[in-house]
Amino acid sequence: MSAGCVIGVDLGGTKLLAGVVDADLNVHHRVFRHAREGRSGDELLDVIVAAVDEAREAAGGEVRAVGLGVPSLVDPATGVANTTVHLPLRDVPLRDVMAERLGLPVAVDNDANAAMVAELRAGAARGASCAALLTLGTGIGGGMVVDGAVVRGAHGGAGEWGHMVIAADGPLCTCGNRGCLEMLVSGSALGRAAAEAAASLPDSGFGRALEAGTAITGMLVTELAHDGDPVARDVVARMGHYLGVGIANVVNILNPSVVVVGGGVIAAGEMLLAPARRVVAERALAPSRDQVEIRATRFGDASGMIGAAILAQDLAASR
Amino acid sequence: MSAGCVIGVDLGGTKLLAGVVDADLNVHHRVFRHAREGRSGDELLDVIVAAVDEAREAAGGEVRAVGLGVPSLVDPATGVANTTVHLPLRDVPLRDVMAERLGLPVAVDNDANAAMVAELRAGAARGASCAALLTLGTGIGGGMVVDGAVVRGAHGGAGEWGHMVIAADGPLCTCGNRGCLEMLVSGSALGRAAAEAAASLPDSGFGRALEAGTAITGMLVTELAHDGDPVARDVVARMGHYLGVGIANVVNILNPSVVVVGGGVIAAGEMLLAPARRVVAERALAPSRDQVEIRATRFGDASGMIGAAILAQDLAASR
Repeated sequence: MSAGCVIGVDLGGTKLLAGVVDADLNVHHRVFRHAREGRSGDELLDVIVAAVDEAREAAGGEVRAVGLGVPSLVDPATGVANTTVHLPLRDVPLRDVMAERLGLPVAVDNDANAAMVAELRAGAARGASCAALLTLGTGIGGGMVVDGAVVRGAHGGAGEWGHMVIAADGPLCTCGNRGCLEMLVSGSALGRAAAEAAASLPDSGFGRALEAGTAITGMLVTELAHDGDPVARDVVARMGHYLGVGIANVVNILNPSVVVVGGGVIAAGEMLLAPARRVVAERALAPSRDQVEIRATRFGDASGMIGAAILAQDLAASR
Repeated sequence: MSAGCVIGVDLGGTKLLAGVVDADLNVHHRVFRHAREGRSGDELLDVIVAAVDEAREAAGGEVRAVGLGVPSLVDPATGVANTTVHLPLRDVPLRDVMAERLGLPVAVDNDANAAMVAELRAGAARGASCAALLTLGTGIGGGMVVDGAVVRGAHGGAGEWGHMVIAADGPLCTCGNRGCLEMLVSGSALGRAAAEAAASLPDSGFGRALEAGTAITGMLVTELAHDGDPVARDVVARMGHYLGVGIANVVNILNPSVVVVGGGVIAAGEMLLAPARRVVAERALAPSRDQVEIRATRFGDASGMIGAAILAQDLAASR
């Protein structure tokens, strides 16, 4: 293995992915962990340290630095995770704590900003001057690129497309707002919409799944939709519609040349993206709507991990 | 008068303001014109030329350049006004046409981008690295600043906060989308909301105005609200609420240090801004919501004209 490896870690709302990544962005070893809701902040830090230790052992040679993407607003100046909607991390000085525990240089960023970095440097948004990213998982992570650089905002809080309200009097979001995009478009939203369909249509694929005691998750919906289940397809298409409303907003706000869609829900592929593209073509302002491409992530679920590794490489190169 | 004057022109949805502006941003002469809906594109160009000619004559000395802000998506590379929601300008090569007719260098930009430039260089957002602006007039104009520069997007279409949907299944907007912020928050929206109130409350200030044949405009609502009319105050406060929903989105998307609110509707002042600030404090993500100041424009209705003059100064300095 090359001597220039780093470890990238993507801490999602429900799971963790770590990887040993070389200078060419090849991934040599992957580590998965569950990051269940309800865990304490200290336990979460233990999970991260254990995953990095496993990756480090697998790496064999020297590891130059660790990059960590977390589903939090992260202040880039201090590496403090300020606010985390889906995990018990609040005002945690993650960069300094992890650097001390690991004995390695640590870069910390918002998980979706990390994914945006990966897609911008080497993925679906490569070479774009102006771009956006939405990762559809437990919630929605968001990233934004202006003049070829990821936008952090005044204190690292920029790019939260998931907490853009598209239904002002809509359902209460976990963040305290109402009608946020992620209440209508995310893995959790997919599961909720399907559970509602299951309750009202006991003879549907969902109804049978519910009766058999199977949890109705976003992943199950996507599987059933791929199998041709009409109710599942309807649920995914409806989510694609609202994704389109959200992306039309992104287009009107940013006029990007590319919008990258990732996260677990992108497993639905064109069943999700085709209706979203239709809504953008109908609703966003011309000519911006004709100047944008809507693409799936190149790195799939690994965008955040690979982006975190790139941040670690940048950090190691700067020292 | 100093020799270094330029002319700034702000073409709004219903009116035009031109001014002779010196290097210290002092305005030496102002020209007003109506730009009524329904006029043809050619007639609009005549109105602009006549206004500039009047300003030029008043300037006495040499005019170095003309800056023109228009309520359109403008491609900064070509100076073409691509799409205009409230005026008959579409795919007009404004920069070249006006330069030829005036015999002067001409800079063209979106009117709200021009206002953003004025507030950033010398106004309410002075010195901000990351900021946004919403001008509430016939519609909503929007501007966005990242790393101290106005964001144009891939082709000049960025910053259209007014066409950010906040009510996905809401009323049809003039742009073809549904539930855009400007359908709920603008001078037109204020007039519409008050006309509804007038119809249902004939004994209110509006009801009496309606009976007397007075047109219920945003300006009348603001005047009645300043006079203490409870229905007018309710209408303004409700608009302030939705303005807050929109600004909370801006805060979550951009994490700006300042959001500047301008346009005719800002005449309502704190009656509009106080409820907006409350919604942002309740609904936007922490800590971004605590890091943002929501301020009225420094230059009031003249932000766009002064910003256009600054663009003209920049153009003259670059030649």
